[in-house]
This record gives sequence, C-alpha cells and structure tokens, in this order.
Amino acid sequence: MQKRGFLLILSGPSGAGKNTVLDATREMCPELRYSVSATTRPPRPTEQDGVDYHFLTEEEFKRRTEAGEFLEWAEFCDHLYGTPLGFIDDCLEQGHVIVMDIDIAGARQVQKTMPEAIFVFLLPPSMSELENRLRARSTETDEAIKHRLNRALEELKAGINYDYVIENDIVQESANKLRSIIIAERCRVRRSEYFEQLKDIVGKRGGR
Amino acid sequence: MQKRGFLLILSGPSGAGKNTVLDATREMCPELRYSVSATTRPPRPTEQDGVDYHFLTEEEFKRRTEAGEFLEWAEFCDHLYGTPLGFIDDCLEQGHVIVMDIDIAGARQVQKTMPEAIFVFLLPPSMSELENRLRARSTETDEAIKHRLNRALEELKAGINYDYVIENDIVQESANKLRSIIIAERCRVRRSEYFEQLKDIVGKRGGR
Repeated sequence: MQKRGFLLILSGPSGAGKNTVLDATREMCPELRYSVSATTRPPRPTEQDGVDYHFLTEEEFKRRTEAGEFLEWAEFCDHLYGTPLGFIDDCLEQGHVIVMDIDIAGARQVQKTMPEAIFVFLLPPSMSELENRLRARSTETDEAIKHRLNRALEELKAGINYDYVIENDIVQESANKLRSIIIAERCRVRRSEYFEQLKDIVGKRGGR
Repeated sequence: MQKRGFLLILSGPSGAGKNTVLDATREMCPELRYSVSATTRPPRPTEQDGVDYHFLTEEEFKRRTEAGEFLEWAEFCDHLYGTPLGFIDDCLEQGHVIVMDIDIAGARQVQKTMPEAIFVFLLPPSMSELENRLRARSTETDEAIKHRLNRALEELKAGINYDYVIENDIVQESANKLRSIIIAERCRVRRSEYFEQLKDIVGKRGGR
C-alpha cells in the first residue's frame, strides 16, 4: 500500500524544546527526512555547503524569494534564512515524511503556502502552569506578571490553528508522542494510494 | 492538560482480524475502555450479566431502541445485539478512550449517531493483493473471480469514509499502529482543554 508523503511542522514558543524533541524523534525514526535551509550568512569553517546550509548570495536568495522558491523565509541578525520548496516537493512525491522545527512566524507562512502540512504545537514545560494562572487572572495585581502572561498567551494563541499539541514535560515522552502522530498520519485514508485507486471507481476522494 | 475522551471504531470486512488486533492493543493499553453489549440472547452458563453482556428481554431491548438508547444495534441469528449509549457518554465525559470492533454495517450506524468518533478501517491481509488485481482487471475472464472481487470491492468502499486505514499483515504491527492512532488523537488540539480555555479568550474553537 503506497502512501503519499507529508510535511510535519513542529512549532511553538521559543524555549519549548523543539530542537531537542525533534532530535530524539529522529533518533527513533531514521527514515524521516529533514530539509537543509538556505542562508545568506557566510559559512563557518566547519560548515559544508548543501549539508549544514545551502549558502547563497543575497542576490540569489532574493531572486528565489521572488520566484516563490521558498516554503518560508525570514531575516535574522542581518542574514536571510529560507526553506527550499523544491526539495520538499520531491520528498513528498517520493512518499517521504519530512519534519521541520520552525518558529511560530515561520509556521504561519507554511500554513499559507502548504496548508495540507501537519502542524504540531509544542508547549514549553513552564507554560503548563499557564492554565492555573489564567484561571486566577482576576487576582493578579503585579503588572510584570500580567505582561509576561499576555505575551505567553499571544504566542499560545497560534496553537489553536494547529492539528496537535504536545506538552513537553519529558523529552522522550514528547518524542514518543511525535512519533505516534507520524505513524498515525501515515495511516490516514486520504493519504492512501489504496483508496486513491478506489476513488476512481466510486468517484469520490477518500478520507475525512 | 485535561482531555476529552473519544470513541474509536475498528471496522472492516469480516476476516480482517478486528478482534485479534483489538485484543493485542488492549494488552498494551490497559487504560482503554470497552463497551459491554446488550443482547436478547439467553446467557450461556459461564456468562455474567453486565460483564459479558447486558442480558435484556426483547421488550426491554425494543423499548431502549425506540428511546434511542443504543449507539447501534443489529439482529443476528434471531437475537438482538446493541451498544448502550449511556456508558459511552459517561466514559467520554470522564476523558476516557473507548475502543470497539464492529462490522461495516454497525460502523455505518455509528457514523450517523456519533460522527465525531474516530473510524479505523482494518484491511484483511488477503485483500492487500486487491490493488494488483484491480490493476489487472481488464485481463480477467473468470466470472467467479470477478464476482469475488466485486464483493470485496463493495466492502472496501466503506473505508473511503474512514479516518485511518491499517493493512493487517502482522497483528502486533497493526496493534502498534492502532496504539499510535490513539496516542495521536489524544494530542488533537480540538480535544485539548488547554486550548478550550484559550478559545473563550480568543473567541474561536480550536483545532483543525
């Protein structure tokens, strides 16, 4: 039963532990693909072009941006960073699963360019207390706490439009959950070539 | 982070191995609840009321059917069998996951009475060859093979409206996949109390 691939975006507030959880997941699932970013930042001595980054001139980067060749891109510390769309398209066509950790603003771009991707929101452990804090909001008097909560809340709102949420208390448990999500999404009827064929017969696209 | 429960229906053609896969899954996930069916069949000597079945008179069964107290029901060998809705509602409210294996006709009833349930289609191992057979249909001449394929196809069509499909080649692998689906569905944003609270603040129901 051949399957189509899919792109899984792991996002969430900074400090949630996206990178750590993704590394632990990759260790369990070596078949997962990941995208090498493009950047205009000069390579560091140990970095290899095409392995650590695709190193591009600013002109080339901008040309590709205008040509719509990035899934998402951003400026950071005076340098441009982007995710090349071509590699992702190739992987999906070959049936691979690609995982990417990305900040909330980047994920928002992906929601526009590739809404069929799977979006997983990682909650930082410290934010698991937010629920109680929100409940007790009326008793808050300290302006600083209020400001911090509002910022956290602002970041958390993004998760409402995601497919899944993982509370990252224990990294290995979070990685297990992420792996389960990947296995489950691989079983989706709408991604099954098997039902894709039936569709031609019964005249309806499969899956809910 | 409190979660709402959900009902997971494992269905598929007869001979797919639903019962075996569900038993293997329950062994790994003892927290899963399962529903005790009601029946008008008389109890066998070893069977306990409320454990193996809820044994009902035909009058009581029909009264409950008319009162809409069954998730689904069917007649089999002159006896009535049904799934009591009350128990399922209670479990869901308490945040539990209920799993049920059920035939395709029963699952069709559940799709009407509880469309928010998760539907998993189990493909029998022998049907994994259907894809090739369908591809080669034009070369078929034997009427008997055609008839068998058409019946299998008829049953397979039901799966198109399901959420997930598992090809049951190795029972333990199928059970692992089913467990992954349960873990993933537990991580659904739309089932998260966490985002349920945020909803009240941002004024939008969470989850995709």
